[in-house]
Amino acid sequence: MRTSIATVSLSGSLTEKLTAASRAGFDGVEIFENDLLASPLTPEEIRARCADLGLSIDLYQPMRDIEAVPADEFARNLRRARHKFELMRRLGADTVLVCSSVHPLAVDDDALAAYHLRQLADLAQEFGIRVAYEALAWGRHVSTYDHAWRIVEAADHPALGTCLDSFHILSRGSDPKGIEDIPGEKIFFLQLADAPLLAMDVLQWSRHYRCFPGQGGFDVADLVRRVLHTGYGGPLSLEVFNDVFRQAEAGPTAVDAHRSLLVLQEAVGVATPPAPVVPTGVAFAELVTPDAEPVSALLGALGFTRTARHRGKPVDLWQQGEARVLVNTAGAARRDGTSLAAIGLESPDPAGAARRAEALLAPVLPRRRAAEDAPLDAVAAPDGTELFFCASGRPEQPDWRADFADVEHAEPGTPGVHRIDHLALVQPWHHYDEATLFHRSVLGLHAQESVDVADPYGLMRSRAVTNPDGSVRIALSVGAAPTDDTVHAQHIALATDDVVAAARRFREAGGRLLPIPANYYDDLAARYEFADGELETYRELGILYDRDAYGEFRHCYTPTVGRVFFELVQRDGYRGYGAQNAPVRLAAQHLTR
Amino acid sequence: MRTSIATVSLSGSLTEKLTAASRAGFDGVEIFENDLLASPLTPEEIRARCADLGLSIDLYQPMRDIEAVPADEFARNLRRARHKFELMRRLGADTVLVCSSVHPLAVDDDALAAYHLRQLADLAQEFGIRVAYEALAWGRHVSTYDHAWRIVEAADHPALGTCLDSFHILSRGSDPKGIEDIPGEKIFFLQLADAPLLAMDVLQWSRHYRCFPGQGGFDVADLVRRVLHTGYGGPLSLEVFNDVFRQAEAGPTAVDAHRSLLVLQEAVGVATPPAPVVPTGVAFAELVTPDAEPVSALLGALGFTRTARHRGKPVDLWQQGEARVLVNTAGAARRDGTSLAAIGLESPDPAGAARRAEALLAPVLPRRRAAEDAPLDAVAAPDGTELFFCASGRPEQPDWRADFADVEHAEPGTPGVHRIDHLALVQPWHHYDEATLFHRSVLGLHAQESVDVADPYGLMRSRAVTNPDGSVRIALSVGAAPTDDTVHAQHIALATDDVVAAARRFREAGGRLLPIPANYYDDLAARYEFADGELETYRELGILYDRDAYGEFRHCYTPTVGRVFFELVQRDGYRGYGAQNAPVRLAAQHLTR
Repeated sequence: MRTSIATVSLSGSLTEKLTAASRAGFDGVEIFENDLLASPLTPEEIRARCADLGLSIDLYQPMRDIEAVPADEFARNLRRARHKFELMRRLGADTVLVCSSVHPLAVDDDALAAYHLRQLADLAQEFGIRVAYEALAWGRHVSTYDHAWRIVEAADHPALGTCLDSFHILSRGSDPKGIEDIPGEKIFFLQLADAPLLAMDVLQWSRHYRCFPGQGGFDVADLVRRVLHTGYGGPLSLEVFNDVFRQAEAGPTAVDAHRSLLVLQEAVGVATPPAPVVPTGVAFAELVTPDAEPVSALLGALGFTRTARHRGKPVDLWQQGEARVLVNTAGAARRDGTSLAAIGLESPDPAGAARRAEALLAPVLPRRRAAEDAPLDAVAAPDGTELFFCASGRPEQPDWRADFADVEHAEPGTPGVHRIDHLALVQPWHHYDEATLFHRSVLGLHAQESVDVADPYGLMRSRAVTNPDGSVRIALSVGAAPTDDTVHAQHIALATDDVVAAARRFREAGGRLLPIPANYYDDLAARYEFADGELETYRELGILYDRDAYGEFRHCYTPTVGRVFFELVQRDGYRGYGAQNAPVRLAAQHLTR
Repeated sequence: MRTSIATVSLSGSLTEKLTAASRAGFDGVEIFENDLLASPLTPEEIRARCADLGLSIDLYQPMRDIEAVPADEFARNLRRARHKFELMRRLGADTVLVCSSVHPLAVDDDALAAYHLRQLADLAQEFGIRVAYEALAWGRHVSTYDHAWRIVEAADHPALGTCLDSFHILSRGSDPKGIEDIPGEKIFFLQLADAPLLAMDVLQWSRHYRCFPGQGGFDVADLVRRVLHTGYGGPLSLEVFNDVFRQAEAGPTAVDAHRSLLVLQEAVGVATPPAPVVPTGVAFAELVTPDAEPVSALLGALGFTRTARHRGKPVDLWQQGEARVLVNTAGAARRDGTSLAAIGLESPDPAGAARRAEALLAPVLPRRRAAEDAPLDAVAAPDGTELFFCASGRPEQPDWRADFADVEHAEPGTPGVHRIDHLALVQPWHHYDEATLFHRSVLGLHAQESVDVADPYGLMRSRAVTNPDGSVRIALSVGAAPTDDTVHAQHIALATDDVVAAARRFREAGGRLLPIPANYYDDLAARYEFADGELETYRELGILYDRDAYGEFRHCYTPTVGRVFFELVQRDGYRGYGAQNAPVRLAAQHLTR
């Protein structure tokens, strides 16, 4: 289907918005009136710019407070409409959005509303323009889509149809089933937006918190299915008012927006991108650092062994059980200090995973870094993290491990850590919703609820994405403000069956664990009963404790190197990530800075 | 009265919070449990730190989910409480807050709740501790203050009383009148918070949007009056959960918090700071710049004349009618580029205005900059702007004008500008609520409603503060994110009776007005009817137009120098600031950067 986006959904000048929409692959745009008013381009120039960019102008919007008003007011409205229709002719736009009136003088009179809309449609018809009438969720007398449709039906004019908007319909809790009773040719336009499920004033909700389909809590796909069932043949068009997107760069936002429509089309069965290939494990985590020593010292103390070295690059493979960490000193120029730059995900079908990622607009990275390297499928996540799709140890597939030569006499010993439990990545503040949708739709991971975590210097939010068996878990977090993007650290959590033993070994090997305040343990003693000596052990080592309905969780932290630290976790059935303890950990980390 | 603040209201470590509270003048604190848990200080060390800082620990908080739960759960709660009472003894805190239960197993049984609270009070009494029971607005079965009080009354225990919280009471719309029926000695604690009037889920509202009294929409003073009427003798204590304050520096937030309590005490008649001295006009606006030439050129083209020069510093006085602008090349090191650094406000009683400002914790600036300068009363606003209280031309008062020597042969000619209409200042993102409260309480100005303004790169908010006759108008605006603090420009709006003539003169003198897109004028033509040629004149000059119920508004803009631009305004009864046109202006300014 054709895809479109309202210019109000993107930041910048009209030119920037149009360019971003075109580059992201949209077929058309809705021109938001204020964007046109603020543009130095004439309507003819905008029309030409859109044509050059391969964009149709699918809608001009909005016209407000037209119908069911006193006669003198309506006369002024018709005069205003004539001006706008002339403008639309210059612009080459053939459909105009009319929102249900919020005018203080508007009356509750469907017959008058229909009469006025018919007159407006008469005028529009002279200009070859169609009028799409939409119920605002907060319209003064018309606030539901079925009511707007009854008025359109009563007006009975070929140039008058209805516009459906998923936000206005779903935010009010209207049943979208009735959409199927509207003839498809009378649905002149379909605007789509999702939103988080908030209990708040619907006008404020709409103006500040809309998001792209799949980023919120509405069943937008169900609504679209019903609209398509009517025979609607217009575009799927996004109209999103969002305080964060208004600040974000238009380019990435437009890509995210278009991805949301691709996923939506897949959900409703009108597009078939390559199927998701859900990752089945973490092959490796790659740290990029200007100086391998501090990280290598930490890994050594944690029980990792340097088992191999890349044949062509200064990259070491450190391993313990099934936990693998690459330490790369070649690419540190890409980021400040030590950072978690890449993740290897085990994939049943690496090429298929990459094809889906590409179809869903993820930047595809070169398959080979050097001529002699194994050809690996990789894409970039919204935060810049490189995601490699791996087929470790499968003979029919290229293996990343083949690029590495074993280090002689590497003796791993008895592992205390058996695998990577989870990876925690700090997301760019402007692209948190995007990150979640990316990991869900591109990788086929499941997103858990977002939780607030109190850092001493602002609330963070965190949301985990996982595969079904929990062998891939990524915690996506975001700071309190755009300035926090590089303040907070990423981390690698390592799974162990005995965190006490692992912590002791780390300390005996010279490692220092993050000190946890004694007050924390006094609180644990108040909340839970422990076996004799258990709490004293945690207190001594700096091990934190939590439990949920499924089991217990014990965990502790290494110091931070650059932007990265490690966590040792023992999860005995527990399903969370220790969010309860995160404020204590964050405060302790601030103290050690 | 004694003043107190909950540590959760401030950012940072517990030590930073305590220090900030003490420096701002608070008498005590509520220790929020999570702040204690995350602190490396022992309870004894916290106690000593508070004593050193002159702070009492007025409350330990919160204990949750205590009452009306199954017997085994309550047994665990008593065990937990014993631990916390031991902690409180170490801490030297004698009152604990117990919030009404939200436990899923809690039952709706007031008798059981009273029975449990009595048992808790029995235990507390052994430790010399008092239990203050509070109804959370979202409590499972107890959510109103009168209900909580009925349970406390039924429990009838000397160590059990109630805690009143203005947010929990006013957010639910409860009538605070019933407070007067509670004996004052049974009100063990009073927590105060204001909040903007939002229609949203009360839990989210409480956790993210609380603010200090006077910053929101609740009648906190009325509630406090009723509490005082009961004979309550405890502290006025602030408990504010606010996403912005969590990120802001604790020091300024604590000062703002304490100011809010001083103003509140004045409102309820228990404190009498020096009375407000409302300014009666703008004596001058002072620009600080490293290079006087661009600003001087603008002022000259706007019709200003350099009429005087400071006797001791490189400061020029430019004047036109009653509009005076100082151009200061001495102090540019204080800020980047050209900025609006100081405002002179005409005051009926400069010394009184300064005394009130000082009593309300505004930083007082040195009265004389140099030995020979006139002694002027001045304070700093939260954004760093220096506010001078002036008594221009009054022989019995020091006059700032006396520091200036007239320039010979300065010929002002016929003024087109007669005074400064308003000043627009960009506020630090973290201190927008503070700025409003400052201007209201310290200067006695009236705050108008906050409006959203769409900049191409994010929503701004703007709020005007004015004196009764409109001769002092200051628009306080804030960008979309903390990073925007220095992006947006300040401006000086100059009042003229004929903006067309003033704009023409400016152009003839070589000035360039901000170009406004032609599309804007097409829209004006659609919305309004103008006299013949009127719109063409506006279009030619770049004059914007708006109207409200009171009159018409015409205005235009100069280019920006550093962070400052000028506006010419003709307001014929109009009361606003052209917010309707601000998006067009902001977009045009982005284009000319």
